[in-house]
Amino acid sequence: MVESTLLPDLATQVLIPLCAIVGIAFALVQWLLVSKVKVSTDKSHSDSKNGFAEPLIEEEDGVSEHAVVQKCAEIQAAISEGATSFLFTEYQYVGIFMVAFAILIFLFLGSVEGFSTEAKACTFDATKLCKPALASAIFSTVAFLLGAITSLISGFLGMKIATYANARTTLEARKGVGKAFIVAFRSGAVMGFLLAASGLLVLFIAINLFKLYFGDDWEGLFEAITGYGLGGSSMALFGRVAGGIYTKAADVGADLVGKVERNIPEDDPRNPAVIADNVGDNVGDIAGMGSDLFGSYAESSCAALVVASISSFGINHEFTAMLYPLLVSSVGILVCLLTTLFATDFFEVKAVKEIEPALKKQLIISTALMTLGVGLVSWIALPSSFTIFDFGSQKDVKSWQLFLCVCVGLWAGLIIGFVTEYYTSNAYSPVQDVADSCRTGAATNVIFGLALGYKSVIIPIFAIAISIFVSFSFAAMYGIAVAALGMLSTIATGLAIDAYGPISDNAGGIAEMAGMSHKVRERTDALDAAGNTTAAIGKGFAIGSAALVSLALFGAFVSRAAISTVDVLTPKVFIGLLVGAMLPYWFSAMTMKSVGSAALKMVEEVRRQFNTIPGIMEGTAKPDYATCVKISTDASIKEMIPPGALVMLTPLIVGTLFGVETLSGVLAGSLVSGVQIAISASNTGGAWDNAKKYIEAGVSDHARSLGPKGSDAHKAAVIGDTVGDPLKDTSGPSLNILIKLMAVESLVFAPFFAAHGGLLFKLF
Amino acid sequence: MVESTLLPDLATQVLIPLCAIVGIAFALVQWLLVSKVKVSTDKSHSDSKNGFAEPLIEEEDGVSEHAVVQKCAEIQAAISEGATSFLFTEYQYVGIFMVAFAILIFLFLGSVEGFSTEAKACTFDATKLCKPALASAIFSTVAFLLGAITSLISGFLGMKIATYANARTTLEARKGVGKAFIVAFRSGAVMGFLLAASGLLVLFIAINLFKLYFGDDWEGLFEAITGYGLGGSSMALFGRVAGGIYTKAADVGADLVGKVERNIPEDDPRNPAVIADNVGDNVGDIAGMGSDLFGSYAESSCAALVVASISSFGINHEFTAMLYPLLVSSVGILVCLLTTLFATDFFEVKAVKEIEPALKKQLIISTALMTLGVGLVSWIALPSSFTIFDFGSQKDVKSWQLFLCVCVGLWAGLIIGFVTEYYTSNAYSPVQDVADSCRTGAATNVIFGLALGYKSVIIPIFAIAISIFVSFSFAAMYGIAVAALGMLSTIATGLAIDAYGPISDNAGGIAEMAGMSHKVRERTDALDAAGNTTAAIGKGFAIGSAALVSLALFGAFVSRAAISTVDVLTPKVFIGLLVGAMLPYWFSAMTMKSVGSAALKMVEEVRRQFNTIPGIMEGTAKPDYATCVKISTDASIKEMIPPGALVMLTPLIVGTLFGVETLSGVLAGSLVSGVQIAISASNTGGAWDNAKKYIEAGVSDHARSLGPKGSDAHKAAVIGDTVGDPLKDTSGPSLNILIKLMAVESLVFAPFFAAHGGLLFKLF
Repeated sequence: MVESTLLPDLATQVLIPLCAIVGIAFALVQWLLVSKVKVSTDKSHSDSKNGFAEPLIEEEDGVSEHAVVQKCAEIQAAISEGATSFLFTEYQYVGIFMVAFAILIFLFLGSVEGFSTEAKACTFDATKLCKPALASAIFSTVAFLLGAITSLISGFLGMKIATYANARTTLEARKGVGKAFIVAFRSGAVMGFLLAASGLLVLFIAINLFKLYFGDDWEGLFEAITGYGLGGSSMALFGRVAGGIYTKAADVGADLVGKVERNIPEDDPRNPAVIADNVGDNVGDIAGMGSDLFGSYAESSCAALVVASISSFGINHEFTAMLYPLLVSSVGILVCLLTTLFATDFFEVKAVKEIEPALKKQLIISTALMTLGVGLVSWIALPSSFTIFDFGSQKDVKSWQLFLCVCVGLWAGLIIGFVTEYYTSNAYSPVQDVADSCRTGAATNVIFGLALGYKSVIIPIFAIAISIFVSFSFAAMYGIAVAALGMLSTIATGLAIDAYGPISDNAGGIAEMAGMSHKVRERTDALDAAGNTTAAIGKGFAIGSAALVSLALFGAFVSRAAISTVDVLTPKVFIGLLVGAMLPYWFSAMTMKSVGSAALKMVEEVRRQFNTIPGIMEGTAKPDYATCVKISTDASIKEMIPPGALVMLTPLIVGTLFGVETLSGVLAGSLVSGVQIAISASNTGGAWDNAKKYIEAGVSDHARSLGPKGSDAHKAAVIGDTVGDPLKDTSGPSLNILIKLMAVESLVFAPFFAAHGGLLFKLF
Repeated sequence: MVESTLLPDLATQVLIPLCAIVGIAFALVQWLLVSKVKVSTDKSHSDSKNGFAEPLIEEEDGVSEHAVVQKCAEIQAAISEGATSFLFTEYQYVGIFMVAFAILIFLFLGSVEGFSTEAKACTFDATKLCKPALASAIFSTVAFLLGAITSLISGFLGMKIATYANARTTLEARKGVGKAFIVAFRSGAVMGFLLAASGLLVLFIAINLFKLYFGDDWEGLFEAITGYGLGGSSMALFGRVAGGIYTKAADVGADLVGKVERNIPEDDPRNPAVIADNVGDNVGDIAGMGSDLFGSYAESSCAALVVASISSFGINHEFTAMLYPLLVSSVGILVCLLTTLFATDFFEVKAVKEIEPALKKQLIISTALMTLGVGLVSWIALPSSFTIFDFGSQKDVKSWQLFLCVCVGLWAGLIIGFVTEYYTSNAYSPVQDVADSCRTGAATNVIFGLALGYKSVIIPIFAIAISIFVSFSFAAMYGIAVAALGMLSTIATGLAIDAYGPISDNAGGIAEMAGMSHKVRERTDALDAAGNTTAAIGKGFAIGSAALVSLALFGAFVSRAAISTVDVLTPKVFIGLLVGAMLPYWFSAMTMKSVGSAALKMVEEVRRQFNTIPGIMEGTAKPDYATCVKISTDASIKEMIPPGALVMLTPLIVGTLFGVETLSGVLAGSLVSGVQIAISASNTGGAWDNAKKYIEAGVSDHARSLGPKGSDAHKAAVIGDTVGDPLKDTSGPSLNILIKLMAVESLVFAPFFAAHGGLLFKLF
């Protein structure tokens, strides 16, 4: 007899969409609140003191309020237009890619049984009849498209709200740092909740719709659902890689000519690349990070579901237990909602030094509350004991063990976040040591920075290793998948904090370009500094979850390809491992070169404008921002093709020519090697960035002894920061995509590889 | 019936020591030839025109010949003294380490059977009686000491000849580039042949002596012999890591104060660290590289022997076939001897542009001849068909298959060498692109250099992967071991070319310090430039062989620990893999920081001397070279302790607490991850070095457009070069030691781990 769960199936059917809708509604409310800040050149609004009854706390020196607001509105429009134009250009390529890849999925998966429409024996229970491979092919393709479109829409909306909020944050900064903080944070929350909730809702609907056809064939149903993860993740390829190249090409290009050659400050409106630089923040850090985490979320859910479908939940058709991963995410939305109120309503940020603690508190509160939430879900949605598929055998698992699996992922995320902060914040000794090494020049700065990055992998790797060991021991690959989900369960809060960073960064840029007072600029700088640290935390988090997700996908792939061991002592596997460990280097070399080439094109254009447009340096003529935006857009999309092809083609080539065992080796190798480079690259870059900021800010005797801006030590720090830019914003984070995408692609194509793979070995 | 080999056992017993003795004799002859160049302040020698009948081709401007020779002799004495003092200080620590580790080996291995003196059943053939574990413990300890002492003596002699040859090369450079080349190359050959021949001879003698006790228990005999590899490799830890820290601390320290702060040229005698810098070349590149390759050689022989002992050779007691690995090395010595004559006698280097081709020809000739040699040995020393142990089963192997295994390693080495050259020589576009990126500053130079290093791993990894696949498929782990031996079979030539580099480098330094004419300096620079490229090739070669050797040791470890699969899908193995892949980062962070700290101490001392010794900048007062040498010596040995402890303790801790499966994961992970970092680090560094040289030399229009010395592009190139120094000479090559030493240590301690390991899992 199958023990039932406390939560009836009907309640599950209601609870999940309900939570998702609550999340979406919450996001809309936040949007509404942000929209109360008016950025309009309409006189009537200006008269009403920018939507507030009391007069503005201060007036800009020599700039009328109307002129400032108008300037902000113009800049915002330019940034928004640039970002939209990038996304629409990207979508043309995405469209072609989606259609082509959808056809590929259909052909590969359809060919497994030669496009037969007859039902076949199930893989894991030969006594039952399952839907034909052709159905899997069709539904996988549909799921792929659904995942891709959901990711696109979420990214688009996130970018829209970010470019909507940046100028509003600038304007609010006139009233005080607390007001500005709330606007930036609320806007981040819009992005976070929209993405988490819509990802959940679409997945839930897809499962229910697919069920109409698949009926009791849950194995086939959840196999087909994996396409959702692939769709989400392949959009992340565009978001992270093209976005990463865009943002750094614009940034490096703007700095090399502006700061180095022309000696004008960052974000100076005379620099033709300045709008492209600000667009880049939105494109790379908002849309890119969003699609990356969305991909992780979709993939870990799919990995958990596919393993569960061949475990007792799937075999006994326990719907509530089957949807445990979705229930965890649902509760996560509610927890994050409550957590957000701590930042926006329960407490108020009043001073600059309260910003960073307020953001860090978000992480701690959400993790603590989520622990309770997971406990509740595990109690009501799981039978007290069940079995989980473990590479050919079944493993007995207790519900409290699964609770621990989720928690270990959740808390490992927090630990990784704080270790990342320790190594990248200039409040601690590692970054201060790097800053100190600037005394002896750029070379020692680079050496110490690289060493710091290498060192910073130690604790995160142990944290991931312990999570893997605990969750693997308790519940095999299902444990890993739910641990990844645990890490991602507070994704709404995580994304809110992440998105807050680039919004503040943009706000600072707008303040500079609109010529606002020093005080306003100081406030936006403070917001931005806190955002830098949280951005590093977010990156650590994204990498950690990517590692767990890839392993879960790897496990699901191995299960689906019906391999029971991946033995390092066989040549097929070992060479896969070795070559797999090389792929992150190949990929990084490509992305770093891409940034270089794209930046070079930008440099040429900026130089051209400075040389050919008269009056540009005097500020009497307006530079041609749009051309720079276009160059960044075209270059980034063109440059992402080689690294993108490497990621997309490797599993197909290896699987087809060398078979599933070598592919397993490649996946394991790229995972264990890639995660190290990703962590070290993003921490090294973060540390250099903050070492530079440490010297510039000069808040301690030590820092002042290295500065001020323009000193030799500062110049050395700037070189480090420039080296770090592509590492931390392009090549490092892109590796998440490499390891996840190869794994999910292998999973989706597993039936094909298992049936027709290893051609080379078959021939010889 | 056992098919016998063409070569009788008695002939084997004669042939191997004969070849070794021929090698040693050849080395002594080369030494004799080098010693004909007189560096003496004795009047009578000076009168005899430096030992040559004809008068010197040119006279130094304004410097009498006598004064120059005397100056050279003084400088040489100072360098030789510094190097000797480093080595003797090192030996004090080595002595303590050797005694402590010898006791550890004895205790760990003795405790396997509780120090019982009774014979036990053999591991792989329970029907036979084998010697007690206590005997293994004693003989392993003795073998360890033998390996360590052989490595020490070889390193010491190599260093002696190098410091003996440097001034002689300088003096010969007055007569022409060809004469100088011959002296430098012959001296390198002394080192190469001494090391290869003595390594072979001692191993051969040890096997024969151990056999007196072990008799027919070949399993026990060759288990004990593995200690020889461990001994050789643990000395490499001191040579590579301490030597690497020494050389770069002195180099960076000298440059930071001399070139950057005081604006005096490299190798200027006014710089107090200049002698330490030249000592460093000998300590790091001669003694360090020598001990590294000696370790690889000893380890691959031991790995092959231990696998053979449990294969048909060992079971049937076929002595000649058993010693096939030693026979390959013996023939290697003869082949290298012949090859050397091509450089010294058959052809003559007459012009600068002939140097590099002459060195590269050495590699090609030795590889081609060795292919024939291996064919011969495989024909006469192997039965046409035999079985090889393959993780619990036996695999049938034909002699021609084993021939192919050796060849694939041999040729992969050549390919890796040439790819390395392509990426690090400024004759090709990769380095020229890096040089070009200096136009936009140091940051782009660093980014492009890192990207180049990442990219340069692709082909070597494929070459290694193919070697592994071929040799593994043909003859399991024995195939890997002989492939590694194949790569190392031309070690004498390889080392001769490697040692040639630092000798030429030193010669240039001496010419500068002795104030010799521009012409002489130009010739030594040309010798040095060719040495730079071959040094990069040598490093690629060392890494490639380290990868194969570690895998062979890993295989031997797995066999000896009686594991039949290392399944990535078990949590124990996977976390090992993940943590293992992290270790190279941890280790690199440590070594890079070590260089930084040691260099900082040097900087302080050099600054102190410049500030406190009056007349030092005017050249009227002599700096205190000895204190700088002492600082480098002490700092490097102190700084090597943490990374050394990481390498030595990891296998012991993991094996004891987590057991052999996790340890297997750690070994595989650190191998596949470490080899990538090692290759990319050393190629990045080499590329930066040569990009700088490219700009300085200005041989093409492109190069001239970036120069001259002191231009902004050149300054950017210098920064890259300084960053690359610790990467290419310390952290990169040290990783060879990490991956090899952990593997050989695991192999030696395998019986202990198999019996008592995994405490943590046993407790819980």
